[in-house]
Amino acid sequence: MDYAAESLKKHFEWRGKIEVISRVPVTTRNDLSLAYTPGVAEPCLAIKNDINKSYTLTRRSDIVAIVTDGTAVLGLGDIGPEAAMPVMEGKAVLFKELGGVDAVPLCIRSHDVDEIVNTVRLLAGSFGGINLEDISAPRCFEIEQRLKECCDIPIFHDDQHGTAIVTLAAVLNALRLTGKKMGEVSAVINGAGAAGIATSRLLYNSGMKNIILCDRQGAIYTGRINLNTEKQQIAETTNPENRKGTLADVMAGTDIFIGLSAPGCVTQAMVESMNKNPVVFPMANPTPEIMPDLAKAGGAVIVGTGRSDFPNQVNNALAFPGVMRGALDARACDINEAMKIAAAQAIAEYITDDQLKDEYIIPNPLDRSVAAAVAKATANAAADSGVTRDF
Amino acid sequence: MDYAAESLKKHFEWRGKIEVISRVPVTTRNDLSLAYTPGVAEPCLAIKNDINKSYTLTRRSDIVAIVTDGTAVLGLGDIGPEAAMPVMEGKAVLFKELGGVDAVPLCIRSHDVDEIVNTVRLLAGSFGGINLEDISAPRCFEIEQRLKECCDIPIFHDDQHGTAIVTLAAVLNALRLTGKKMGEVSAVINGAGAAGIATSRLLYNSGMKNIILCDRQGAIYTGRINLNTEKQQIAETTNPENRKGTLADVMAGTDIFIGLSAPGCVTQAMVESMNKNPVVFPMANPTPEIMPDLAKAGGAVIVGTGRSDFPNQVNNALAFPGVMRGALDARACDINEAMKIAAAQAIAEYITDDQLKDEYIIPNPLDRSVAAAVAKATANAAADSGVTRDF
Repeated sequence: MDYAAESLKKHFEWRGKIEVISRVPVTTRNDLSLAYTPGVAEPCLAIKNDINKSYTLTRRSDIVAIVTDGTAVLGLGDIGPEAAMPVMEGKAVLFKELGGVDAVPLCIRSHDVDEIVNTVRLLAGSFGGINLEDISAPRCFEIEQRLKECCDIPIFHDDQHGTAIVTLAAVLNALRLTGKKMGEVSAVINGAGAAGIATSRLLYNSGMKNIILCDRQGAIYTGRINLNTEKQQIAETTNPENRKGTLADVMAGTDIFIGLSAPGCVTQAMVESMNKNPVVFPMANPTPEIMPDLAKAGGAVIVGTGRSDFPNQVNNALAFPGVMRGALDARACDINEAMKIAAAQAIAEYITDDQLKDEYIIPNPLDRSVAAAVAKATANAAADSGVTRDF
Repeated sequence: MDYAAESLKKHFEWRGKIEVISRVPVTTRNDLSLAYTPGVAEPCLAIKNDINKSYTLTRRSDIVAIVTDGTAVLGLGDIGPEAAMPVMEGKAVLFKELGGVDAVPLCIRSHDVDEIVNTVRLLAGSFGGINLEDISAPRCFEIEQRLKECCDIPIFHDDQHGTAIVTLAAVLNALRLTGKKMGEVSAVINGAGAAGIATSRLLYNSGMKNIILCDRQGAIYTGRINLNTEKQQIAETTNPENRKGTLADVMAGTDIFIGLSAPGCVTQAMVESMNKNPVVFPMANPTPEIMPDLAKAGGAVIVGTGRSDFPNQVNNALAFPGVMRGALDARACDINEAMKIAAAQAIAEYITDDQLKDEYIIPNPLDRSVAAAVAKATANAAADSGVTRDF
């Protein structure tokens, strides 16, 4: 199918992919007196006296904002707030359909970190959580970090953590299948943008000791000059042998390749240089770092991509609806590493031992019950790690 | 009924009065490819190339933000963003149910004019219009004016203009019934807050020449000291005889009283001092400036209040859903005086000559077809006054 033309036609027919509806009847004057004046004064006062009641007397337990500045939308770059909206509406559709989370897209007309942080901070009282989306690196790191500090609701940059969670789930199931152990395998991650940085951190926090993150200049290592703050942190915690060199140099002798970079930058020979039975996740979209057939020809035993037309699609939609649903259900004030790891485990464990095979290590993103399992695991981890608020 | 207790109970049951839903199916991978990636890139690019397409390819033609800072909510004063939400959700319900307008409540945690203006300005690309709500005077005037200047979507402060429009409709029908003419009658408006200022302006722009606006110090006239900008403008355009004195002083010998002030400040004697067959709209809520039976005892031939349990409820819900619907339908970049006057006329004319009587000069706010008539009139006036954009 010609998705471009068909999608344009459908968008015109749809007239928006989301809609705000009323949950209450307004037929009689009595309805009006309860939902609006004079009755509404009472829930207002109840919240004024105890702000936690905003979670039971308004939509706050179910509604999040999807916030973008339109700077890193799909592969289209900086297309501005209006043009970013079709993607944000699509995201809102997935939040609702998969996680039962109401989502309001807010596209901000600014590239300024201070302005974006301030806008979200000022609106945080209207939402139960914030999903940051398609904000370019490295601004996305500072924006998320500052919002986590100044807001008391969960902040989740999906391009970082959604990708990291689903990638971790894929790695967990690859280890299950290959019988290797997290603490013993090595991985090269190519691409040091939002997703690459977050995936490095989450794998490290999951117990993977030998990770090498590469950017366009090759391996990131302690002592390399001109590293930004995030890459500097990565240099300090990963790459324990302080390996240097190109992507090809450092891929040799590793167990797992994770591509969050650019089409075609991995060759069959590079896969052949990896350890025995390598696992290869070339997730660049729409064209992977290496096509699955080539990766297999190079010896890869498990391959996962970002595409729906190949097996093992590493798709954020497996994570963000359930993670946010779980954070809202637990009334968490944060989404921390423990919650993300629990979410990844829930995605991985959704596939039973009987079902698990090299072409099925990741569930179908449209399977509604994945999000429910992720939500439960995330909420439990929130409670266990002490970031939930009193109900 | 005990509305306070019942409303609190209902709000707890409702778990939010609004909900964001999906308008598209997401069951198959094909659905996903059309509503989200990869297909969604095409509508994004179409909007990037022509920003007007945001009105046909996203929800923008149907969605507005309800923006408040929580400073003037009901009679509760400054209760903050979370506590303002039940009112804003109620407003969103009315927008949807009466006008078919999707509305997203955004409660801003700031009292600073610059911050509020900037927040809304940065988000204007995500909405087709902005409804300002429950922002205290005089900040509301500056906020609205500055937003009108920096945004290219309609900005509507309902506490000002919604009230002004419905009041004008009530005045129009009172004139129809009493056979008096707009250019010949005199009116005293008590209360120089957002609603009083806007109502003075709209009556003036509708051809009423003899208006006296009063605040707590009495009549506003040219030369009175310490007037804020809005009152200064009112002093210059109204009160042609430059009358001074208390509310009681200036009510004597006028035809119409409009109360947007405080309970009980008008006595029967003050109504008796008005011209023959006076029209009295004491709209303070929940307790009017004078109770209808007292006003009638004082000689009032027509009485309208803000309450649903008396005849002739002057209710903003008659105006804002239809006005915004009309502005969206016409793709207006402003809501100007001509549109407001057209809306008022549509509300007034909704009642036929046969139906019109002293206890029925204002339609039922729950009658869905009022908003449709208002929308049509508003959209036509937008086109006639040249504030619509190309489709």
